[in-house]
Amino acid sequence: MSPKGFLFSTAEAAIKDTGRKDLALIYSEAEAVIAGTFTTNKVKAAPVKLNIKKIRSGRGQVIMINSGNANACTGKKGIQDAAEMARLVAHGLNVKSSLVYVCSTGVIGVPMPMERVRSKISELIGNLGKSNIEDVAAAIMTTDTLPKIVKRWIKISNKRGVIAGICKGAGMICPNMATMLCFLMTDIAVQQKTLDKTLRDAVRQSFNRITVDGDRSTNDTALIMANGRLGNPLITERSEAYTAFKKALYDATTELSRLIVKDGEGATKFIEIEVKGAKSNADAERAAFSVANSNLVKTAIYGNDPNWGRIMAALGYSGIPIKEEKVDIYFGKVKIVNKGLGTGKDEDAKEVLKEKEIRIVIDLHLGRSSVKVLTCDLTEEYVRANKAYRT
Amino acid sequence: MSPKGFLFSTAEAAIKDTGRKDLALIYSEAEAVIAGTFTTNKVKAAPVKLNIKKIRSGRGQVIMINSGNANACTGKKGIQDAAEMARLVAHGLNVKSSLVYVCSTGVIGVPMPMERVRSKISELIGNLGKSNIEDVAAAIMTTDTLPKIVKRWIKISNKRGVIAGICKGAGMICPNMATMLCFLMTDIAVQQKTLDKTLRDAVRQSFNRITVDGDRSTNDTALIMANGRLGNPLITERSEAYTAFKKALYDATTELSRLIVKDGEGATKFIEIEVKGAKSNADAERAAFSVANSNLVKTAIYGNDPNWGRIMAALGYSGIPIKEEKVDIYFGKVKIVNKGLGTGKDEDAKEVLKEKEIRIVIDLHLGRSSVKVLTCDLTEEYVRANKAYRT
Repeated sequence: MSPKGFLFSTAEAAIKDTGRKDLALIYSEAEAVIAGTFTTNKVKAAPVKLNIKKIRSGRGQVIMINSGNANACTGKKGIQDAAEMARLVAHGLNVKSSLVYVCSTGVIGVPMPMERVRSKISELIGNLGKSNIEDVAAAIMTTDTLPKIVKRWIKISNKRGVIAGICKGAGMICPNMATMLCFLMTDIAVQQKTLDKTLRDAVRQSFNRITVDGDRSTNDTALIMANGRLGNPLITERSEAYTAFKKALYDATTELSRLIVKDGEGATKFIEIEVKGAKSNADAERAAFSVANSNLVKTAIYGNDPNWGRIMAALGYSGIPIKEEKVDIYFGKVKIVNKGLGTGKDEDAKEVLKEKEIRIVIDLHLGRSSVKVLTCDLTEEYVRANKAYRT
Repeated sequence: MSPKGFLFSTAEAAIKDTGRKDLALIYSEAEAVIAGTFTTNKVKAAPVKLNIKKIRSGRGQVIMINSGNANACTGKKGIQDAAEMARLVAHGLNVKSSLVYVCSTGVIGVPMPMERVRSKISELIGNLGKSNIEDVAAAIMTTDTLPKIVKRWIKISNKRGVIAGICKGAGMICPNMATMLCFLMTDIAVQQKTLDKTLRDAVRQSFNRITVDGDRSTNDTALIMANGRLGNPLITERSEAYTAFKKALYDATTELSRLIVKDGEGATKFIEIEVKGAKSNADAERAAFSVANSNLVKTAIYGNDPNWGRIMAALGYSGIPIKEEKVDIYFGKVKIVNKGLGTGKDEDAKEVLKEKEIRIVIDLHLGRSSVKVLTCDLTEEYVRANKAYRT
């Protein structure tokens, strides 16, 4: 069951390789409250720049997405194109252009093929209701191997509200960038301020805690629309129902971020790195990312090599305080490092690394903060996929 | 011609695979002034910890090097072992232990095989003078494919002084770490303070401007001994000869750092990335490293793909101020980006990328600072070499 009052549509404008859908619409029958987070990259795609301005109103009704072209590094023309895309859709749907958000993913530095896009707008609008959320999840894929969809249900005042979310991955999107796009929609009535805060918190704990290769895209975006069609009393941070709503949103973004890492380009293994016993969350996060982004750690895990020295080195150059003689490291349940020294349990650890999902716990024994970061291994296939000349 | 008054020796203690030398001595007949720089990694190998203390005296006479074992993450036993290695060599050579520096490279977290080392000390000392600097350069190799040696000559007061240097690479040293070791020796008399300052400056401009994979080792070390055997008037920063000395040392470290990158593990291409027009050197360096460490940039270059969008994205997430609409990017002489927009010269740029040595210039047009960073491409061979289980 999808959230009430949302309609979906897809079309093919041959922006990416032919034979695949590359345009999509998410349309709320009623004007909705909206919240969003955007890439911190200083080079932002044209539609991201526009969305950042629009979202100040907190209102939205339509999200238009194209895959195959990022509309990034495209100058003034790119801004004009993104604005035109919003205008055309707004006109066709008879909504205000300020309520239409455009999101793009694909190749950087190539002008949007506007003729092909324009020619497909009426078809895209005409298709509304003919596609479902799964079709949209497929249309926004680039090198993703699977569409990524989650749904969470919450009981509020004897009604069942839904949060549905889709995303496309940071498998590092061929032919270009690691763009993460995420669209969430719910029929639950939520105060905009509450929606905004909860989304930011959820994104911080989920999408901002994953890394495939450390590269951050020009287009990363997460948007959530809440249209209130459930008819529940408006949820604010003081509502009794807020805890359940917050948990459902956290769960949804966490699950989506896990799906992204699992579909990491060329990845054969899903790796959770937990750093605990840090003096602060910031320290824990920095250390966890230092390990998660180390090519040496990632290739060792790919090769089933419990090479904990590489982890110690990555902790050492992370920049946070480390006391080598206090560090414990576990691969699964196998303690491979005790107080900074190897335990010699390499053979047991090697068995753990042969699994598809690997959990590494690093205890710094310096404080009480802990952070989990998700990543994947680095393989020859990653190199092969990303060396390919853009087609 | 080597610097006067230095003797060399090598031996095999089966620390690394048998059949290869893994112990080496660099011995100055006279006590020398010494200067050094060491890894900034907070997890430091045992011998590094000892060297950092010893070098405060500014005096040295012997450098003992072993390959095959990093003596890192080895706790108190590691410190004892490193101290014993220095003591044994000092005893055999009848010099003070405080003048003996031990440097190690190889696997992390495995105790030094002291029995095998001890049994080879007298042979190592007995061999002094039977090996040359080339033999030492070979003995300190791990996954390096070639020994790395440079020599520079300087005329001072009608005499010809020599600076000779050897190093081993950050090809990421199999089976473990990207350890960079560099040993320089000269017969020129140099004031310790001057030697120290000049080495630090030279390292900053050379070894600290290269990256193979962004991982920093627990063992990185650069040492220079000056024994004054040339008999020249002591060089200080005020000496007329200082300029020539400084230039020669810069040249030597620059050349050695280039050799390291060229021998980067699995590398097929040598890449120089120059960021200019930055507001400060710190900004330029940060931007250049952000590009040089991007797996996406490195795989694109490997695949001859002039994928400048990945460079723009790496500049964008480097954290420095960027004005997208001012950025120019050149591959060789081909201007691929003009004021933030693609010039469409992809075919020309592709030809440039087919070369073995590639120069990328990024002009931010924001200021007057510039920095060059050297790196190499990321290949399947890198992954293959680093996934291999330690043997």
